Amino acid sequence: MAARVGVLGATGAVGQRLIQLLDPHPEFEIAALTASESSEGKTYRQAAKWRVDSPIPDDVAEMTVTATDPDEVPDDVGLLFSSLPSSVGAAVEPGFCEAGYVVSSNSSNARMADDVPLVIPEVNADHLDLLEVQRDERGWDGALVKNPNCSTITFVPTLAALAEYGIEKVHVATLQAVSGAGYDGVSSMEIIDNAIPHIGSEEDKLETESRKLLGEFDGAELTHDEMSVSASCNRIPTIDGHLENVWVETEEDVSIAEAAGAMESYPSLDLRSSPDPLIHVFDAPDRPQPRMDRTLGDGMAIAAGGLQETPFGLQYNCLAHNTIRGAAGASVLNGELLLENGYI
Amino acid sequence: MAARVGVLGATGAVGQRLIQLLDPHPEFEIAALTASESSEGKTYRQAAKWRVDSPIPDDVAEMTVTATDPDEVPDDVGLLFSSLPSSVGAAVEPGFCEAGYVVSSNSSNARMADDVPLVIPEVNADHLDLLEVQRDERGWDGALVKNPNCSTITFVPTLAALAEYGIEKVHVATLQAVSGAGYDGVSSMEIIDNAIPHIGSEEDKLETESRKLLGEFDGAELTHDEMSVSASCNRIPTIDGHLENVWVETEEDVSIAEAAGAMESYPSLDLRSSPDPLIHVFDAPDRPQPRMDRTLGDGMAIAAGGLQETPFGLQYNCLAHNTIRGAAGASVLNGELLLENGYI
Amino acid sequence: MAARVGVLGATGAVGQRLIQLLDPHPEFEIAALTASESSEGKTYRQAAKWRVDSPIPDDVAEMTVTATDPDEVPDDVGLLFSSLPSSVGAAVEPGFCEAGYVVSSNSSNARMADDVPLVIPEVNADHLDLLEVQRDERGWDGALVKNPNCSTITFVPTLAALAEYGIEKVHVATLQAVSGAGYDGVSSMEIIDNAIPHIGSEEDKLETESRKLLGEFDGAELTHDEMSVSASCNRIPTIDGHLENVWVETEEDVSIAEAAGAMESYPSLDLRSSPDPLIHVFDAPDRPQPRMDRTLGDGMAIAAGGLQETPFGLQYNCLAHNTIRGAAGASVLNGELLLENGYI
Amino acid sequence: MAARVGVLGATGAVGQRLIQLLDPHPEFEIAALTASESSEGKTYRQAAKWRVDSPIPDDVAEMTVTATDPDEVPDDVGLLFSSLPSSVGAAVEPGFCEAGYVVSSNSSNARMADDVPLVIPEVNADHLDLLEVQRDERGWDGALVKNPNCSTITFVPTLAALAEYGIEKVHVATLQAVSGAGYDGVSSMEIIDNAIPHIGSEEDKLETESRKLLGEFDGAELTHDEMSVSASCNRIPTIDGHLENVWVETEEDVSIAEAAGAMESYPSLDLRSSPDPLIHVFDAPDRPQPRMDRTLGDGMAIAAGGLQETPFGLQYNCLAHNTIRGAAGASVLNGELLLENGYI
Repeated sequence: MAARVGVLGATGAVGQRLIQLLDPHPEFEIAALTASESSEGKTYRQAAKWRVDSPIPDDVAEMTVTATDPDEVPDDVGLLFSSLPSSVGAAVEPGFCEAGYVVSSNSSNARMADDVPLVIPEVNADHLDLLEVQRDERGWDGALVKNPNCSTITFVPTLAALAEYGIEKVHVATLQAVSGAGYDGVSSMEIIDNAIPHIGSEEDKLETESRKLLGEFDGAELTHDEMSVSASCNRIPTIDGHLENVWVETEEDVSIAEAAGAMESYPSLDLRSSPDPLIHVFDAPDRPQPRMDRTLGDGMAIAAGGLQETPFGLQYNCLAHNTIRGAAGASVLNGELLLENGYI
Repeated sequence: MAARVGVLGATGAVGQRLIQLLDPHPEFEIAALTASESSEGKTYRQAAKWRVDSPIPDDVAEMTVTATDPDEVPDDVGLLFSSLPSSVGAAVEPGFCEAGYVVSSNSSNARMADDVPLVIPEVNADHLDLLEVQRDERGWDGALVKNPNCSTITFVPTLAALAEYGIEKVHVATLQAVSGAGYDGVSSMEIIDNAIPHIGSEEDKLETESRKLLGEFDGAELTHDEMSVSASCNRIPTIDGHLENVWVETEEDVSIAEAAGAMESYPSLDLRSSPDPLIHVFDAPDRPQPRMDRTLGDGMAIAAGGLQETPFGLQYNCLAHNTIRGAAGASVLNGELLLENGYI
Repeated sequence: MAARVGVLGATGAVGQRLIQLLDPHPEFEIAALTASESSEGKTYRQAAKWRVDSPIPDDVAEMTVTATDPDEVPDDVGLLFSSLPSSVGAAVEPGFCEAGYVVSSNSSNARMADDVPLVIPEVNADHLDLLEVQRDERGWDGALVKNPNCSTITFVPTLAALAEYGIEKVHVATLQAVSGAGYDGVSSMEIIDNAIPHIGSEEDKLETESRKLLGEFDGAELTHDEMSVSASCNRIPTIDGHLENVWVETEEDVSIAEAAGAMESYPSLDLRSSPDPLIHVFDAPDRPQPRMDRTLGDGMAIAAGGLQETPFGLQYNCLAHNTIRGAAGASVLNGELLLENGYI
Repeated sequence: MAARVGVLGATGAVGQRLIQLLDPHPEFEIAALTASESSEGKTYRQAAKWRVDSPIPDDVAEMTVTATDPDEVPDDVGLLFSSLPSSVGAAVEPGFCEAGYVVSSNSSNARMADDVPLVIPEVNADHLDLLEVQRDERGWDGALVKNPNCSTITFVPTLAALAEYGIEKVHVATLQAVSGAGYDGVSSMEIIDNAIPHIGSEEDKLETESRKLLGEFDGAELTHDEMSVSASCNRIPTIDGHLENVWVETEEDVSIAEAAGAMESYPSLDLRSSPDPLIHVFDAPDRPQPRMDRTLGDGMAIAAGGLQETPFGLQYNCLAHNTIRGAAGASVLNGELLLENGYI
């Protein structure tokens, strides 16, 4: 029987993707939708300006949107997917966890908190055990799990594949799609025939989240990885798909063939939304490309290519669908991991 | 009196920009236009599919296009601007030089030849003296001077400004406009809602040309700079203006204020096409942007911004108009330098 | 058992879409691929620069591409889908028909010939009987069937739905995607931040093909419809999906409700690629939109919306996926109709 | 001596264009800037997010922005340019007129009022005399003059040129740039790889404003022209420049040559911002194009092209820069007309 789930912040861009992914999902059944005050009491069809590229599911469309409040969510709903603005997430997510809900959240608040697991299942599923620490410390019946920022998710799996060579330094330049900023995040006048070489606080997320994701959890404490990461983030006129240029310096030498092999053989998981292979490696030097490759593995794969040696180590490019693998799909995958591990 | 000049490869994208810049230029008078066989004998208006954003100059429009052959160029023309495809340039430029013409060329052939000056006047005007070596070795009455590739020109002036701190390593990721590939170089199906993470042989140009430009000429031989450069080049859906993310590691520590100061005070030249300031430094972290900043200094300025310290040194972004400062304007500026130095 | 089919001109943009549609098609089995001389003898993977948004099918990738010559196509192949350039189509399609092949062609040559059926199955399947006249006159064992131009296919189904009201005049302005011109048809420098208000010979196709499609076939002769059509065609920076603004003046008055009803209830066919409903009518005045609605009915539906009364009659907008419903899918659908009618 | 002028709503997109045009204007001197409450007391540099493609003028940058209130505007300022949101314009413009200010307004409120002149100087400068009626009726010392909507301004001059042939019916399809909706009016997710076939209330503006502009003023009353106009408006991914497809049916036959002649010889005015020629007619069928032709006549010219006969009359395309000729420049030109006619 499918687990009854809810979506917090259901009307936004990531909320819509969540509904698109959850509606046909055999393990989950959408049973609650919350949004901000202006949507309360409306049907989802009325409340959401639906803009995802598949029609709004009929049954979801007629559900009533409630306030984002634990009292409004039915008790038989065990798992909540959160795509709230981070300030709202910070204010309300702890209340849901205290009330016993397990929250798989895409919101950026609390990602770096010591007792909050920040998880990409294929990379650091073992960090989920941090929830025991969390429950001890906070006295929660519920739990709070985060997935990283979309631009972090894109390159971290490739780093994980290379970790055995000892990563010391990473330079990463991102070319990010406009959907990463939400529906109204980037105006057309800002970006048509243009590029913007800075995304507020995004550089910091790549630099810190990546070190937490590759860190070690000893059962009590999480130690962040010691590699140095320097990111430069750019917004470009693409709809979906973050492309990243990555330079990696490793302790041990790694050849192009070894690096490609490590990526291609990096294991996926036996979870419904984990694609096999996880990392698709292109031989062609001009791939991956956002429009061509963002839907690999139903938008859940990481694409890599252009591997080459440089005077400093390895250089390559990688890409992921920022609103699927990088946001809604990441939260769903964490939900699957939570389900498999008995948290729901 | 204005020097009579010609344009080799006058109908292409850079050729059109050359005409746009040369027509109102007080020191030069367009007196010869050459192109490929299919254009021979036509008026320039008939031969060129004019696509620059100002009307085709009336007098140039009625000139007759000739073959790209020294015999077709009037003898009183002393200086030729070349925007030929590189394979054609390699085949015909030496013949023009042998016939006594001074050629200021944007074509990529021979840029790395030991006796060919590769010049950005504000950066390495002294390399022009390499022409004495060239004439000695080749027995030419004419001369061949090259300007670098558009993506090289964009970041090298900022490196030159920082050279006093001892540049050791440079990582550079480029976001390049489609005009850099010529009118038909990038199809719309390739690039709308997309980005291409590789530009054939472009990475190599940034890495090698930059070291030649910052090299030392001792009167006999040119020694390339020893810094290491690793480039990753991307094509994005912008019309004009190459944006670049640069990381620099220096021997001596350099603060953000020192770096900004070094860039802002880097001297321009007393040549008509050299803008003052040469490098415009933005405080706003999200500048420079291609559509907003590519026409600074009539398209001849370098824009920089986003300076910040990283674990590894300095990071910043820079931008230049790729078909003006990066191509046609670069050749015109070299023409002005040649004129000032008595080569014409 | 699936009919063995071939694709003439298999490496181009429409050829690739044909392969994408035919590979999973249960009624057809790809057994022959032809292309121009430069591709002969290569595997399809080598010959085609694959750019469709799904991976190249493995079995097709390893097939050998042959010359576009009846002698090169196996005898057990009965049906050929042609996406040849029109000049090539004009030269070689008759030879295939003479050799006994049935050709479902997207090429523009011969579309207006008196004895060549120009067919949109849902609109004028009865015109297929013109093949009897064709075979009589030309002595062919094979047959030649055409589908209309992509921009014609987009609006003709809506006219067919309104035909009962007596269409007298049609004004149509098109906003066409770049894929309609083939992979290299529109350069990025031509179209980014731009629009082109003319597409060579396209206006004429909308005006003449629409009248043939809505014409009457009496068993011997086809009489074109007498409505007047005036088209103005624009290229805009979209990848796929032609959007059209249509004004219709009818003999009998037609209300918005009646027009919407006529469109929504216009019958689809019991053929695999004919979607149900054929015409999707939006209430929202700002739909259909290319990126949002081009994949309705797997790219085979017509989307309409914005119906309103004007001083002159009815105004509405319509949209179809130009390389699926407007090209490759149109040919496949005609193939299905030919199969159902016993021509193969 | 230059007239001292003010800008109401100075921080928005049109307000910035107004400042770009007024700053170098020899007849006007910017002496007052107003904006909404959040900008009050700030310098213009702080208040405006400057996004026009030339640097913010230094002197204007340091001016203090005041509330949009007659008491805040110095008494020696005679003329105000208004680019307020229409609801704000409706609320505050009458107060300025009552207080004695002459207001040249781009805001859409009151454009269709019987006693408010709606003026394109080259088309209906004589309508300015309606101000006498306005002052009589309203008891104002000041005056209120409007320019039409950007999409109306684009095609009305071409209709004015053809008026002698007796215009009966007009169909017009627009392809409008995103800047027409203001900086945040169209999000990038809405428009990249897309088009939107409806712009709220825009169709109505083309249909009604055009008839007022071509109407006759007998000294007491303005009679609107009787032609019928039907408009269909589309938003496309271009930055600046509205392109329009126009069909005109006239009482008298008009050949293409006559129509082109009428447009080319349509008189400009002896006002600084009125370009000569007013209408530039292209022979090439694929012109005008937004990116290529929007800056003709410094953005104040109308470009036309593609003239052809249809079954119904004449068809052609026209284009104007929507934020210069279609908005800020239109208001400035009306200001020049007001100055010449002694209203200031």
